[in-house]
Amino acid sequence: MVVPIDPTSAAFLFAENRQMPMHVGGLQLFERPEGAAEDYARQIYESMSEAGDIAPLFLRRPTRGITTAGQWVWTEDDDFDLEYHFRHSALPEPGRVRELLELCSRLHSTRLARERPLWEAHLIEGLDDGRVALYTKLHHSLVDGVSAMRLLQSVMSTDPDERGMAPMWAARPRARTRAARADAERSVAGVPVEAFRTALGITADAAGLPGALVRTLLHGVRNETSALSLYAPRTMFNTTITGSRRFAAQGWPLERLRAVGRASGTTLNDVVLAMCSGAIRSYLVERQALPDTSLVAMVPVGLNAKKAGEASGDGGNAVGAVMVKLGTELPDAADRLSSIHASMVTGKQALSSMTPLQITAMTALGMAPSIVIPTLRLHGLLRPPFNLIISNVPGPRKTQYLNGARMVGTYPLSIPINGMALNITCNSYVDDMCFGLTGCRRSVPSLQRLLTHLDDELAALEEAVGVA
Amino acid sequence: MVVPIDPTSAAFLFAENRQMPMHVGGLQLFERPEGAAEDYARQIYESMSEAGDIAPLFLRRPTRGITTAGQWVWTEDDDFDLEYHFRHSALPEPGRVRELLELCSRLHSTRLARERPLWEAHLIEGLDDGRVALYTKLHHSLVDGVSAMRLLQSVMSTDPDERGMAPMWAARPRARTRAARADAERSVAGVPVEAFRTALGITADAAGLPGALVRTLLHGVRNETSALSLYAPRTMFNTTITGSRRFAAQGWPLERLRAVGRASGTTLNDVVLAMCSGAIRSYLVERQALPDTSLVAMVPVGLNAKKAGEASGDGGNAVGAVMVKLGTELPDAADRLSSIHASMVTGKQALSSMTPLQITAMTALGMAPSIVIPTLRLHGLLRPPFNLIISNVPGPRKTQYLNGARMVGTYPLSIPINGMALNITCNSYVDDMCFGLTGCRRSVPSLQRLLTHLDDELAALEEAVGVA
Repeated sequence: MVVPIDPTSAAFLFAENRQMPMHVGGLQLFERPEGAAEDYARQIYESMSEAGDIAPLFLRRPTRGITTAGQWVWTEDDDFDLEYHFRHSALPEPGRVRELLELCSRLHSTRLARERPLWEAHLIEGLDDGRVALYTKLHHSLVDGVSAMRLLQSVMSTDPDERGMAPMWAARPRARTRAARADAERSVAGVPVEAFRTALGITADAAGLPGALVRTLLHGVRNETSALSLYAPRTMFNTTITGSRRFAAQGWPLERLRAVGRASGTTLNDVVLAMCSGAIRSYLVERQALPDTSLVAMVPVGLNAKKAGEASGDGGNAVGAVMVKLGTELPDAADRLSSIHASMVTGKQALSSMTPLQITAMTALGMAPSIVIPTLRLHGLLRPPFNLIISNVPGPRKTQYLNGARMVGTYPLSIPINGMALNITCNSYVDDMCFGLTGCRRSVPSLQRLLTHLDDELAALEEAVGVA
Repeated sequence: MVVPIDPTSAAFLFAENRQMPMHVGGLQLFERPEGAAEDYARQIYESMSEAGDIAPLFLRRPTRGITTAGQWVWTEDDDFDLEYHFRHSALPEPGRVRELLELCSRLHSTRLARERPLWEAHLIEGLDDGRVALYTKLHHSLVDGVSAMRLLQSVMSTDPDERGMAPMWAARPRARTRAARADAERSVAGVPVEAFRTALGITADAAGLPGALVRTLLHGVRNETSALSLYAPRTMFNTTITGSRRFAAQGWPLERLRAVGRASGTTLNDVVLAMCSGAIRSYLVERQALPDTSLVAMVPVGLNAKKAGEASGDGGNAVGAVMVKLGTELPDAADRLSSIHASMVTGKQALSSMTPLQITAMTALGMAPSIVIPTLRLHGLLRPPFNLIISNVPGPRKTQYLNGARMVGTYPLSIPINGMALNITCNSYVDDMCFGLTGCRRSVPSLQRLLTHLDDELAALEEAVGVA
């Protein structure tokens, strides 16, 4: 069956090259259920390999040729080989988280082969505490990052006793009731499905990039009175990148972040940004590479569509983006937090005063930078007005289980691009805030140092606001 | 330091694409020394990581740009990161040879990153019997296959008590005496260094492909009276390939092969070819894909340069190639062996009657098919006159040790190319003949079945000649 590839997906295929693979990933950690056998990992690998029918999304591969008149189309892989896509891996001794992150870095560095459906999953054993990990990789032409996360979680259950659950790539029986589906959709952190559809719709616009949108963006970026008009200094992160990646991930108790927010009158998201700001500052200071002026982050936020463009903190059914001054030039943790809070408030206010087209343009910049930024360069804007993207996506509030194995953590792996070598994406999960840092291995050396700095910064914030 | 890239190496860089990575590999298996610690693999990983100075070959990366006037040159990697090139991996449970081959298949499928020196090495732990493996990958623009094997072995010792041995990539002290070097060179199976230099020289010619050489090849291939004039049927192996690989490897006691040879009046190499022939026949029969006429293999042979082009069995100081009818259409193992023996004798005789330029042309076809064959297509020859390449390279006769760890096997991984999806390379090692089969994962499904067929065929040959 031949299906035309929509312009957004095609754009992600075109944008890809050796230095800039266009796939998103997820790392999920599971505890063995009680009484699990010695070869538990192999057992679940084998049971997941017996998936039966494969869902259409996981069978499609991009094709272009004479029969398609030179157009990119999705065709079904006639010779689908599940063993190629789903693999069983192991960590060398001593099997610490360090070895796991090293393996994920490597897996995230290789490009997906175009002659096959654009996904891979790796079941990973050998962690010293017996936990089992699942690293999943999906091409951005199939799903955007948020939908990927949603997809990964849609196959899990809140019921620890449920067994015989189908893997992500299995075709779901059509018989499932509408109510059950609606429930499953809501269960993913209460974010309505439309939010994801909208985000996809926006990137579709961005890929087409109508002239009006480009003009709006250029206008916004240059207009001194707009929320877009920030000056982002050049940093070591804003450079050309190579194809290999470093990934680092860690979770911190949500309650610690919330306590800092309560004591300082700031939001959870402000505290996340302050942790990132302090960590980046320390990292750059160590390398004697801290600019005099503040780094600027692009931060996607939920919008309340009913109130036409009004920014809301907890996920509306539209998405916008705010440019936030991280205050990296300030030596004091509390000062950085207040500066971020103020910048975020101003940014959200500016966002509410923007026209829908302006919001679309802003969002396009954040959602599909690999497509939009080169286009802007063609139009005369040489440098993006921000240094990195920091996303904070709400995750599941209830503990998730996969065939009885409790998920103890879930971390996003994202896409560094040329000019933006570091990406930070966070998601909440039950009682934790899970950070996933993805960087170009060469441009962001010792990326894992940022985890130590994030940890130090949270302690510094607790100290500064008096909740330590 | 900038060094021009010679035409052969550049040709291997040009020929490379996603579907056709141009690297050769080696898989070496080691036994733990007596009294080795629990974390032996990590210990040797760490000790090999402390290499000190890196040899120039392992520091060079290809560069092209404005400063080099658009030419490809080798430059030294300013930011060399040994941890990127040398990695520590592990096998999932149960850690059989099957899991090892699966991992090597995967490692051999990914392309080397151009922005780095073109090599990788992976120390692999987790084999159920405690053995440790080393998979090494080198780009063909750095070394040809035979030199790669030689390089891998040049760092080992025949002395089980020697310790503190430098890894392959370490700069060797210049103080080593000429005698010691000469000895080390001879120790690799007694093949003189000149043989490798010559082979490289030949591919350099091939890359330039002077008109006379192309004319000779075309003439030879079409001339009914020449040893080149074989008709190779189209098979499932002669198709376009994808970028992912399957690798399978196994060794058989040399004495079993020699006994078959003695009883039938054939050479060791004839028996190797007969094993391949029978295995390929069984594989194609299983898939109902056996052609009516015999498959043709290109078999590189040593030549005695003193006697101007006379073929010799045991490695001279020049290299030629013979087209061998594998007799795959014959149902009887003994018939296949006699047919191969006769074809080999005729081929070698034909080779001795060829002019040096004709031999060079033949050899170029075998040594650098990825370069030569597309060039021939440009000149009007649409199909190579053979179905696959089977090489049998003499390996070390004495047991080799790496810091006290006994090497128990060494297997070559080679390069499938478009139109030739399967490659078989063998090397002897002490008392074994080690087979390495490298194929396109998609075009050669269930490649590992060929190991079973090779085993069955050796038994069938023993039965047929009465040495079972």
